[in-house]
Amino acid sequence: MISLLTDFGLVDASVGACRGVLATLAPGVPIADIGHMVPPFDVARGARMLEYAVPYYPAGTIHVAVVDPGVGTARRPVAIRTHRGDVLVGPDNGLLPWAADRLGGVAAAVELSADAYRLHPVSHTFHARDVFCPAAAHLTRGVPLEAFGPPVDPSSLQRLPRATPEIKDGELRASVAYVAAFGNLHFDVLREDWLRAGLDGAATIAVDADGWRREVPYRPTFGSVGVGEPVLLEDSFGHLCLAVNQGSAQAALGLAVGASVRFSRIR
Amino acid sequence: MISLLTDFGLVDASVGACRGVLATLAPGVPIADIGHMVPPFDVARGARMLEYAVPYYPAGTIHVAVVDPGVGTARRPVAIRTHRGDVLVGPDNGLLPWAADRLGGVAAAVELSADAYRLHPVSHTFHARDVFCPAAAHLTRGVPLEAFGPPVDPSSLQRLPRATPEIKDGELRASVAYVAAFGNLHFDVLREDWLRAGLDGAATIAVDADGWRREVPYRPTFGSVGVGEPVLLEDSFGHLCLAVNQGSAQAALGLAVGASVRFSRIR
Amino acid sequence: MISLLTDFGLVDASVGACRGVLATLAPGVPIADIGHMVPPFDVARGARMLEYAVPYYPAGTIHVAVVDPGVGTARRPVAIRTHRGDVLVGPDNGLLPWAADRLGGVAAAVELSADAYRLHPVSHTFHARDVFCPAAAHLTRGVPLEAFGPPVDPSSLQRLPRATPEIKDGELRASVAYVAAFGNLHFDVLREDWLRAGLDGAATIAVDADGWRREVPYRPTFGSVGVGEPVLLEDSFGHLCLAVNQGSAQAALGLAVGASVRFSRIR
Repeated sequence: MISLLTDFGLVDASVGACRGVLATLAPGVPIADIGHMVPPFDVARGARMLEYAVPYYPAGTIHVAVVDPGVGTARRPVAIRTHRGDVLVGPDNGLLPWAADRLGGVAAAVELSADAYRLHPVSHTFHARDVFCPAAAHLTRGVPLEAFGPPVDPSSLQRLPRATPEIKDGELRASVAYVAAFGNLHFDVLREDWLRAGLDGAATIAVDADGWRREVPYRPTFGSVGVGEPVLLEDSFGHLCLAVNQGSAQAALGLAVGASVRFSRIR
Repeated sequence: MISLLTDFGLVDASVGACRGVLATLAPGVPIADIGHMVPPFDVARGARMLEYAVPYYPAGTIHVAVVDPGVGTARRPVAIRTHRGDVLVGPDNGLLPWAADRLGGVAAAVELSADAYRLHPVSHTFHARDVFCPAAAHLTRGVPLEAFGPPVDPSSLQRLPRATPEIKDGELRASVAYVAAFGNLHFDVLREDWLRAGLDGAATIAVDADGWRREVPYRPTFGSVGVGEPVLLEDSFGHLCLAVNQGSAQAALGLAVGASVRFSRIR
Repeated sequence: MISLLTDFGLVDASVGACRGVLATLAPGVPIADIGHMVPPFDVARGARMLEYAVPYYPAGTIHVAVVDPGVGTARRPVAIRTHRGDVLVGPDNGLLPWAADRLGGVAAAVELSADAYRLHPVSHTFHARDVFCPAAAHLTRGVPLEAFGPPVDPSSLQRLPRATPEIKDGELRASVAYVAAFGNLHFDVLREDWLRAGLDGAATIAVDADGWRREVPYRPTFGSVGVGEPVLLEDSFGHLCLAVNQGSAQAALGLAVGASVRFSRIR
C-alpha cells in the first residue's frame, strides 16, 4: 500500500492530482492519507507526523512524504529503504530520516533521477505529482529501488536537529516541540529523561514558563483533572505532554512551538 | 468495510496512525471517513454526524467513532451490534446509541476488555489507535462480538438528552441543534412536529429569535429565494432547517447552537 | 473508480453519507477525493479544481462533482461522457465542461432523470447523495449512459466565461484567477500569451497592481529567490503564477481573486 503526507492543504487540486497519478500507475493499490495539513513549508513538523504514523503501517508500505520548500532546486529527490522493508519517498531535506529510524534505520537510499519513472514533462514546482508519486507507484509494481537512480550514501542524507532536554537533579528544561490536535503541547522528553531528572513519581510538578508558575498534576490521562484544568502526562507516542482537560493548553497557557518550559520538583 | 468518525482534526498524525493500524490488522478492508472535524470533545455533535451517515452504509459495516474526552478514565470502551447487523465501536459516553437507533436498535453490546484484541502497550490517551481500531479490524476478520469482553446491558449504555420542540397551536419553539456546512441552522423538528403545530402549508413563517423577527418563506429548496435571502426548508435528513441562499444563516442571523427560536403562523 | 469533488467542507456528515451510498451501490469500487474544500457555492473554483485533477486519473474514471447552489431548482442534473471515455456527473451549471475539454471534449450527455437510478425519497437539497452518487455507482456497474435519461445537446450545457488576458507589445494584463495552496496567485495566462506579449526570456518583470509596482524575477521555481521574496513562474498546470518563496503572495501582496495585474517589460 501507499501512504501520503504533504503540506498541500485541502483547498486546491494538488492532493487530488496525486491520487489520480497513483490510481493510474498503480491501479488497485490502497492509498491512505497520513495527513495534508502540515503547516506550509514546516519540514520538522512533517517529519514528526511521519515518524509517529509509520510504525503503525504494514511492513513494506511505500510512504510518500512531501514538505518541499526547495522543490525544483538542488535538493535531491530520494527513496529510502528501511531495514523493516518499507520505502520512504520524498525530498532529501530532513523530512524522511526520523521515520526511517523508527522503521529499523536506513538500509539503502537512491536519488530519483531515472526518466522512465517520472511523469513528463516534469514540472519545476510539483514533484509530488511528477516524481514522488510515480516512483511510489512503480515501487509497488516491483521495480527495484536500484532502478530509480544512483545510490545515495545514507550518511549524506539531510537530518534535522532535535533538541535534547537540559536535566539537573529535580529539574528539566525543554522547549515546546509541537502543538497537536486539541492544542496539546508536546515535548521531546521521554520517560527516561523524566526519570533521570528525578521527577518520576511526583504527583504534582512546578511548571515555569513565560514569567508564570503553575503547579500541575502529573496523571495518566486528561480526565484525571477537572475540565479546564492543566495536566501533565505521557502522550500516546511516549513523549511528555502538557494539556488542558477538554481545552487547549496552547490557548490557555499562551505557549507556542519553541517556548521554553522548566519542570521541577516541588520542595 | 470500516468507517471512521473522530474529533481528532487533520493537523496531526492521529488519524493517519489509525489508518495504519486498520491496514495492518485488516489488510484489504476498505476504510471510509465519515469525518474528523467534529468540534473537539463535542460528543453530541459527533453522535449526530454518525446517526446521519450510518444508514447510507452497507449493512454489516463496522463503524468506529471516537469523540472521547474521558479516554482512559472509567467510561467503558464498547462495541454495539445493531439489529441491521452493523457494529458500532467507541466509548460508552452517548456517542453511539443514536446511530444504533437508526440501524434497528441495539441487538447486543460488549465491553472491549480482551487483551488479545488490543494494541500493546495500551496508552491511556489514544484508545482509537490501541483499542477501538484493533477491535474493528478483528471484527472484520470474523472474531465474534462476544470474544471482546463481557456483555453490556443495552439499557445501561449512556444516552444523551435530546430536546423536543414546544408546540402550541400555530407556534413551535426549538433550539438550534447544530450548524452544518454552509452555516445552515438545523433543528430537532420533524415534519410531524410542523404538522402538529399547524404550520405545514404556510408559505411564510414568522421567525422570532434574539430580539428580532423575520418573515421567512418556507420552500422546498435553497434556490427558491433570492441570493442572500433566508429560507426555511426540510433538510435532507428530515429536519427543519433555517438557511440563507448561497450564504451562511449562522453569520447572517447571528444564531449559534442552543439559540432559542420561535416559529409561528402569520395571522 | 470514482472521484469526488464538492464544496461540502469537512465539518458535517455530507461527504460521509455520499461515501456510504457509493459503498452500498458499488461495493469494492475505489473512491478518491479530489477535494471537498471548494469555497461554498463557488462553481468556477470547483470547475478549475476539477479540470486540473481529472487528466491524472485513469481513463474511464467516473468523476462526481457537486458545487450546486441551485440544487433542487430547474438546473439539470447531468452525466457527460468524454471522448477519452471518462464520465463527469453533476449539475449543469458550468462545473463540468472545462474538465470535459481536458478529457477530449463531450462525446455525449444525458439528463439524470431515471427514477430507477436515484435514491428514494429524493431530497430537494442533497442531490449528491440522492442523484449524483447513485448515478456514478450504477455507471461503474455497467448501466449505459443512455439509460439514465434523455440526451442533452452538448451545445446546450452551461459554460462559465473565462477571462482572456489583454496583450500589447511588452505588456500583459490579467486578473487573479484563483488563489491556491500556500497563497499563490494564479492567472489564466499561458506560455503562448507570455510569448505573444514579448515577455518571455525577461529575467525580471514589472508588476503593477493596486497602486504599487514591484520588479519581480521570473524563475523556474520558488526557491530561485530568497525566502519571503516574490517570484513569477509557470505553475505545474501551465499557468502564470505569482508567488512568494515560503510565504503567501496573497497575504504579502494584498491581492484577491479578480484583482487586476499588469505585467510589463522593464525598459
